[in-house]
Amino acid sequence: MHKTCDVEMEKNILEENERIAHENEHIFQENDIRAFNVLGAIGSGKTSIIERLYEGMDGGVTGGALAGDLTGEDDYQRFVDEGMKAVAVNTGKDCHLDAHDVNHALEDLPLKELDYLFIENVGNLICPVDFPLGTERDIVMISVTEGDDMVRKHPLIFAQADVGIINKVDLAEAMDVDLDVIKQDYRNVNPHGKLIKMNAKEGKGIDKLAEELELPYSL
Amino acid sequence: MHKTCDVEMEKNILEENERIAHENEHIFQENDIRAFNVLGAIGSGKTSIIERLYEGMDGGVTGGALAGDLTGEDDYQRFVDEGMKAVAVNTGKDCHLDAHDVNHALEDLPLKELDYLFIENVGNLICPVDFPLGTERDIVMISVTEGDDMVRKHPLIFAQADVGIINKVDLAEAMDVDLDVIKQDYRNVNPHGKLIKMNAKEGKGIDKLAEELELPYSL
Repeated sequence: MHKTCDVEMEKNILEENERIAHENEHIFQENDIRAFNVLGAIGSGKTSIIERLYEGMDGGVTGGALAGDLTGEDDYQRFVDEGMKAVAVNTGKDCHLDAHDVNHALEDLPLKELDYLFIENVGNLICPVDFPLGTERDIVMISVTEGDDMVRKHPLIFAQADVGIINKVDLAEAMDVDLDVIKQDYRNVNPHGKLIKMNAKEGKGIDKLAEELELPYSL
Repeated sequence: MHKTCDVEMEKNILEENERIAHENEHIFQENDIRAFNVLGAIGSGKTSIIERLYEGMDGGVTGGALAGDLTGEDDYQRFVDEGMKAVAVNTGKDCHLDAHDVNHALEDLPLKELDYLFIENVGNLICPVDFPLGTERDIVMISVTEGDDMVRKHPLIFAQADVGIINKVDLAEAMDVDLDVIKQDYRNVNPHGKLIKMNAKEGKGIDKLAEELELPYSL
């Protein structure tokens, strides 16, 4: 039985994705855009950290956002309301963005104007693993409200994260979640990755993320 | 560019899944087992509602649990600790269980003894949509901690749910989440589906779910 795709076909898809990811990287460099891939489960706070980061960035920079979702424009609209140059990518039934989605969406963004591009991937910790987009760094978020077993249940995505974020930390006690367990699990799969505790809704920890990403942040 | 699988191959996979799902259904009927597919994002509380349901069921019934996860045995162990007949299915990189996974796992369960089987699917609201398992009903959970836009962002899985559950409702106010928005979105995609508010950790609402599923529940 073919479990998902035929192995050869899957290999072709991944190679093609890799090729277009390099193309995207080249486009970002050409246009002096720093691009970030923001990953995490649904409701972990991906949209919020992008909003808060952008609010705190020095005037005079222009931020873009690519909102990846199965359907709808909720997050796209939030980015527009923040004054960002935004584009919505609806993947239908696909559980991740791929490099081709991003490549195509770049046609709808004013690349010459952009200094930064935040790509919000589709909400889950599984599918995006095999699909690099050509971004400078991968930021992977979890929320303490998901429990303390999320990292060890999804080791692949945390192993390749450049920055891990534990969001909604203020709720850890109420949720009976042990932050040290999450930290240790992350350390086990990703000994050198940065890990930042955060409460994105209130802006707590955003400054540390901005510093880690070397963004001009003044709040 | 092939976005995911070649269309013809995808069609074959889905037809094969459908065929094995019917086979599973037949196995459940033959053995007088009522089987349920429990779906939801990571951390939404799937393991907890199965635990609470089983704790409240009359003595003299035997419950089985199939724990679907990418990796690890966390949930499997929780079911064993509840005294259930459990089996772990690790899907590796696959973001859903398929009927074949279940069919294979049934070989490791004492089917003659079981009255009920709770299948905990892999945690996300996207991939399991196309893969019926042969169960009697699909139960789809969300947690208010994920925000109030989860249903409209994932309409397909909620459209085909027999029962929808909003979990962790006690946190709605703290999370600034409007339950009426979730209810209305659910009603829009699934006019006839049951929707139950719950706090699974404390057992609140479990009785309503048991009633809806016609389970012998005495707490």
